[in-house]
Amino acid sequence: MRICLIGAGNLATQLGLALLEKGHQVVQVWSRTQKSAAELAFKLRCPFTTELPLISSENDLYIIAVSDTAIGSVLSQRTWDDTMVVHTAGSTPMSILAPYCKNFGVFYPFQTFTIGKRVEFEHVPVCIEANTSQNLDVLKKLAHSISQNVKLFDSTQRQQIHLAAVFACNFVNHLYAIGEELLQEKGIGFEILKPLILETAAKIVDQSPVNSQTGPAVRNDKTVIDKHLALLAHHPDLKNLYRQISERIIQTHK
Amino acid sequence: MRICLIGAGNLATQLGLALLEKGHQVVQVWSRTQKSAAELAFKLRCPFTTELPLISSENDLYIIAVSDTAIGSVLSQRTWDDTMVVHTAGSTPMSILAPYCKNFGVFYPFQTFTIGKRVEFEHVPVCIEANTSQNLDVLKKLAHSISQNVKLFDSTQRQQIHLAAVFACNFVNHLYAIGEELLQEKGIGFEILKPLILETAAKIVDQSPVNSQTGPAVRNDKTVIDKHLALLAHHPDLKNLYRQISERIIQTHK
Repeated sequence: MRICLIGAGNLATQLGLALLEKGHQVVQVWSRTQKSAAELAFKLRCPFTTELPLISSENDLYIIAVSDTAIGSVLSQRTWDDTMVVHTAGSTPMSILAPYCKNFGVFYPFQTFTIGKRVEFEHVPVCIEANTSQNLDVLKKLAHSISQNVKLFDSTQRQQIHLAAVFACNFVNHLYAIGEELLQEKGIGFEILKPLILETAAKIVDQSPVNSQTGPAVRNDKTVIDKHLALLAHHPDLKNLYRQISERIIQTHK
Repeated sequence: MRICLIGAGNLATQLGLALLEKGHQVVQVWSRTQKSAAELAFKLRCPFTTELPLISSENDLYIIAVSDTAIGSVLSQRTWDDTMVVHTAGSTPMSILAPYCKNFGVFYPFQTFTIGKRVEFEHVPVCIEANTSQNLDVLKKLAHSISQNVKLFDSTQRQQIHLAAVFACNFVNHLYAIGEELLQEKGIGFEILKPLILETAAKIVDQSPVNSQTGPAVRNDKTVIDKHLALLAHHPDLKNLYRQISERIIQTHK
């Protein structure tokens, strides 16, 4: 397909590279800033622009890969004719596209994308939705060309999936950062936590996490919990967080 | 070494199997309950007892692998003579052993142990501490016989390591469980979260987690955050947790 990428962040970059690798043509890249537009265009060997009205109309598909808040503004800055337009956002309903486009949908690769870390798309779940069954077929084909894991979800389900991911990915990563912070305080390197973090994640492949909970809270071990709360005396925010999550674990396993 | 294992939980089981595999002799197993003592003794092909005073004295080492709260009671139930005694607890100082034993230390394998999931000890950090340098040498040798990753930490450091692990492992696992819970509510299988969970963990191998934070909070994306808080209206505990962790991410990255 001839694709125009609107956005040049982590998702746009990884998705663009995956599409190119699978033989699609990224015709043009747009970004608000010249620098990021030029950088991604260089990686994808295509022209770029920072002016939405100047985007070429010679495409089969526009992929809007900007933050949820920017989607509305991007949509209002040009006319989209008959060409299909998709956004890539978890928590924005497909209906946001309806006032602007005739053929539209959502193409949501469900993964965490970080600068400089290439993601193998093959196993990334791609959640799709479209306004007609014909458009859904187009997106299905595109999704299958880059991933073996294509899922059909409506906007309500997708929003819940995104919410679940905030807990199980974004918040999890922040807990890793808290672990690193606590070790640094005593001059201990983060290295020691790595085998534990990897094993904790690996366990979910075969076991429901609720069945493999370990630690002082699931044993309701007040002695250890109180020791930890005392250690956190100088971190009221962490103390509060520790108490709250422990309480929820205790309630869940009671 | 001729080792007596006191305790028959997840840690005692995995440690016993690893020791056996590396040619040590588990002479005897003790547990409070007949059933768990017999089960572990069967796995380790050795006798068992449920009476602490009846444990044989023909050992080179006693390993106390019971919960933090039970260590004191175990120690007080027999005399330990000159034989070396170690406990395996993260948050209990080595000094708990001093009133009861002459040769003592701590042998703390830093990993999450779950029933039925065998752990490869080779890369598990084993944190050791002992009351004399001679005893430390004994523990060093033992630790090196099962792991390539042996670390010397004192009780204060070990306690902080354990605290960091509660955030980065036990609490993380509960966030996985919350993710599963939220998906179940909308009839969506946990399967879809697995690639994301594994990638989030994999990122820490090469990057500090604070540098690879993604999600609405690090972008301070109030639109998405407000949508998620609205979705959590019927879960006041999760709404509170969502707000708190998001706020901490926003503060960290401001």
